[in-house]
Amino acid sequence: MTDKLILALDAMGGDVGPEVVIPGAALAAERHPELHFILFGEDAKMKPWLDKNPKLAGRIQTRHVEVSVNMDEKPSQALRRGRNKSGMWLAIDAVHKGEARAIVSAGNTGALMAMSRFILRTLPGIERPAIAAVWPTTRGESVVLDVGATVGADPRQLLEFAIMGEAMASCLFGIEHPTVGLLNIGVEEVKGNEDVKEAGRLLRELKLPLRYAGFVEGDDIGKGKVDVVVTEGFTGNVALKSAEGTAKQITHFLRDALRATLITKFGAWLANGAFDALRERLDPRKHNGGVFLGLNGVVVKSHGSTDALGFATAIDVAVDMVKNGLVAKIAADVAEVHSVLTQQQPQAAE
Amino acid sequence: MTDKLILALDAMGGDVGPEVVIPGAALAAERHPELHFILFGEDAKMKPWLDKNPKLAGRIQTRHVEVSVNMDEKPSQALRRGRNKSGMWLAIDAVHKGEARAIVSAGNTGALMAMSRFILRTLPGIERPAIAAVWPTTRGESVVLDVGATVGADPRQLLEFAIMGEAMASCLFGIEHPTVGLLNIGVEEVKGNEDVKEAGRLLRELKLPLRYAGFVEGDDIGKGKVDVVVTEGFTGNVALKSAEGTAKQITHFLRDALRATLITKFGAWLANGAFDALRERLDPRKHNGGVFLGLNGVVVKSHGSTDALGFATAIDVAVDMVKNGLVAKIAADVAEVHSVLTQQQPQAAE
Repeated sequence: MTDKLILALDAMGGDVGPEVVIPGAALAAERHPELHFILFGEDAKMKPWLDKNPKLAGRIQTRHVEVSVNMDEKPSQALRRGRNKSGMWLAIDAVHKGEARAIVSAGNTGALMAMSRFILRTLPGIERPAIAAVWPTTRGESVVLDVGATVGADPRQLLEFAIMGEAMASCLFGIEHPTVGLLNIGVEEVKGNEDVKEAGRLLRELKLPLRYAGFVEGDDIGKGKVDVVVTEGFTGNVALKSAEGTAKQITHFLRDALRATLITKFGAWLANGAFDALRERLDPRKHNGGVFLGLNGVVVKSHGSTDALGFATAIDVAVDMVKNGLVAKIAADVAEVHSVLTQQQPQAAE
Repeated sequence: MTDKLILALDAMGGDVGPEVVIPGAALAAERHPELHFILFGEDAKMKPWLDKNPKLAGRIQTRHVEVSVNMDEKPSQALRRGRNKSGMWLAIDAVHKGEARAIVSAGNTGALMAMSRFILRTLPGIERPAIAAVWPTTRGESVVLDVGATVGADPRQLLEFAIMGEAMASCLFGIEHPTVGLLNIGVEEVKGNEDVKEAGRLLRELKLPLRYAGFVEGDDIGKGKVDVVVTEGFTGNVALKSAEGTAKQITHFLRDALRATLITKFGAWLANGAFDALRERLDPRKHNGGVFLGLNGVVVKSHGSTDALGFATAIDVAVDMVKNGLVAKIAADVAEVHSVLTQQQPQAAE
């Protein structure tokens, strides 16, 4: 049974909890025969969904907890109220104790990050964890970070984001050397704020084991110009949500337009396969799963409002991260970069 | 002839120059019978396009200039090389001298801003000008600023952006009290960076003559949740380009999907009217024209790669700004707000 891969799930997280988490786990279990789960939540709420998913029997154990973190709770409050007893806390702690290899939660993002930092701690050499999102592009997918773990980042932190994002892209896309770009408002070296310019200089001048592709702009993300897009949490969050908003807006426009006349309706009916394909490519459930990078353990955040299919995608992401050794890869890459920095910094700073 | 409205046009600006600017002026002249133009550019390059647009005769005068600002020139270089002799400089100067009521240019954005600041100066009480874009939403259009004039903004500058954006929205949409939101990464008061939080506090607590609607997130822009979205130039630029990139990406996906089979192709042919309607709503030429706010004059920047239709839209924007008294409105609003600030600041800061 050495092949077992055990994940901790926060059963009560998300807008609905077990109703999504348990069927999601069942879907993921079908795809990954080695998967087992420890589920943290209220027994009475989990039971009906476990009964409806009998295939999970033997692959899932439950731990009854009475405290759940609310979706709108402030991180500090969640930490106080949920410490040592909420499902979210105990699920993260299962990773810390080595009972589970990763935790997946659809719960309160801020609380999940605060508890994860508290329990798992950041890796040596990492100042700040980041949240990385998977962004659908015309070429496939890219990793974008930070999308909101913290606000602002100095050049050194942006460099860390680059290293961590590269490790994640490598685990997720199975490519050895993903390309990395810094998000900016122009591609010339003189453009942007001081932190981004300095991070660009470090990435250009230091001989890091990293394929740095220079500055990228907002419209380069969707083109898939680079595998990893690095920015600080405020801009990353706004960019991600602006893009999501635009996608919704356009599908809304399209639906309106297709309903305009009988002929467009009939045409739309005939072309239905195409709209299905479009929906499929844009389906947020297929790109679900934000990864918390820089911690001593794998933490994956699912959208709070996703369904079982979306939650299963977040579990897939966790499986990829565990199997491809995300944490070890980040630790090794950071150590390597810090040794390069120590050797090269004096010359580079001249 | 008191009704004449004279605009200065930078004929050589943009990717192609007179080939777009002159037919664009002709289109706009049809819509606005009061419009007249002064065109700054190389006679030899303007002449063929003037000949092709005979309706402009009598409504356009040309000023021959030999120096043009290049699209990729650094602002500092453009200022040195183009001062007092480039078409861009002289067109702005025509506004300063009162010969024209506004200038429209499809040229180098950085150079246009640098020259505009130099010649027109900022309005009293305005620290920094901003570039405002017109963003298509599901409800119509919103004004978003700053989309890249400068990087970073302190609370006071964000407040100025709010005032200026509100004045522009009022001129553009013909509504007396547009709603204003601050772009943030959450709607709670505790979210965001310090500058945004403090600007939020000022807008909430000071009794300003402004309909402040609180924080908005990236996906609220496309929903048209507020008429004016305020942010600093780095984030605004990234948000705008991310949204533009997403729009292109989705239309690309859609085209791909519709070409997949004969049936989807036939359906798409039947539903063509719907796609035309969609294209129309998303057409960047219909939302062209970034307005430089906070200057002693109206400066409108057209996209460099637009066509005559797009350039005519930018001229429309300039006409709206002039007719509705943008500059006077901003000056009055800023004065009013500064007097409110002077009276209320001490209490509010306690």
